[in-house]
Amino acid sequence: MLETVKIILVNTTHPGNIGAAARAMKTMGLEHLALVSPEQFPSAECTARAAGADDILARAQVFSRLEEAVAECASVFATSARPRSISWPVLTPAAAAERVATRAGADFRAAIVFGPESAGLSNDQLELCHAMIRIPTNANFSSLNVAAAVQIICYEINKQHLAAGKEGKDTGERNLPPPLATAEQMEHLYRHFQQTLTDIGYFDPAQPRRLMRRIKRLFNRAQLDSNEYNILRGILTATRNAVGKK
Amino acid sequence: MLETVKIILVNTTHPGNIGAAARAMKTMGLEHLALVSPEQFPSAECTARAAGADDILARAQVFSRLEEAVAECASVFATSARPRSISWPVLTPAAAAERVATRAGADFRAAIVFGPESAGLSNDQLELCHAMIRIPTNANFSSLNVAAAVQIICYEINKQHLAAGKEGKDTGERNLPPPLATAEQMEHLYRHFQQTLTDIGYFDPAQPRRLMRRIKRLFNRAQLDSNEYNILRGILTATRNAVGKK
Repeated sequence: MLETVKIILVNTTHPGNIGAAARAMKTMGLEHLALVSPEQFPSAECTARAAGADDILARAQVFSRLEEAVAECASVFATSARPRSISWPVLTPAAAAERVATRAGADFRAAIVFGPESAGLSNDQLELCHAMIRIPTNANFSSLNVAAAVQIICYEINKQHLAAGKEGKDTGERNLPPPLATAEQMEHLYRHFQQTLTDIGYFDPAQPRRLMRRIKRLFNRAQLDSNEYNILRGILTATRNAVGKK
Repeated sequence: MLETVKIILVNTTHPGNIGAAARAMKTMGLEHLALVSPEQFPSAECTARAAGADDILARAQVFSRLEEAVAECASVFATSARPRSISWPVLTPAAAAERVATRAGADFRAAIVFGPESAGLSNDQLELCHAMIRIPTNANFSSLNVAAAVQIICYEINKQHLAAGKEGKDTGERNLPPPLATAEQMEHLYRHFQQTLTDIGYFDPAQPRRLMRRIKRLFNRAQLDSNEYNILRGILTATRNAVGKK
């Protein structure tokens, strides 16, 4: 399951943290690193702190927007040390790792997203996430270094990986649930939703973003599988046909 | 139990690692740091990497020998990423934390010992330890940074601490989310859904139960709050109006 998980660092300020995160990943057997608009990459400090995890850095993907980084991912987790708004399910690192392990398989891709050092993710970035991982910290000092946070999450994922290995072999005969809808499919769905709500006169152009944000949160939280995705797309198409658009 | 645990760094070479370890400890609520013959302490780099955990550094004890550092400790754990000789019981970080939690009390002191970056603890130093903690790592790249190792161990100790706290009291200061939709409301919603799907011609009377069952599963899983419930009811009403039913 280790290869199904992508670690995404967003707007990382200190190049040393990127290297330390790569090292943290590699110690736990994770390989896929993506960087969204890093302040500096590559750099000597980054490579020094990677301490031998250069291959992770060499293969790191660099994007300008988080959307692109998560496009093929069916499960996107945001990390936070602080309590955030309650619109997302909040998981412990262990529970999130367990969720990834349950789904891990041929077509599944998961992303764990880490915000910039000094701030969190923006609201638009959070909209792309299905659940939040909160690393429990000291209430009076929650300032976890980003590479340390990566270390903890990867450690929990590796624990799940090792536990699965112990039960014998990994794959084989579990009843795999249907694959989850990808982030890209979800984007299509939301666009389809917005068109349809406009057609039926429910969409208020004066407050466009609020309604769509709520709808996104609801369905991101539910983590649609591909059957459910198809049903919803079918309903939207039938609605547009019924009101004479198409 | 957090105050029963002392973190001991032996012969640490890079001053930045001491600061990063102090920060890691503080995020997880641990306070007692001891340093055995650090190459450089205090230092500007150490303080910079502590990122606000200065109080841990200010109160850190410095010793020339590990014997002195562990003198009052009843339980001494050595950490290692590599398999070592089998003269000691080998525990996972979680099992070690559990052991500490079980013992935690007025007179109990535990120490977790971290060796120098480039080598392990010497045999004489290992003799002072009662058990080994092995952090499971990638067999091909086990080079865990010492502060990252401190982070993982402290994270597991904090987990035990939080688990113990939960059995005691509950805080009550959480941000309360909007109330969830009731089962009765959800029944109304599903009936409304079925009518609407019939109106737009999407509902197949030959397989009525299967489609509704899937829709129910999706929304039950999402656990709608009352705002989301109202939005969905509004969309259904707007749809029926748009196709000329009501």
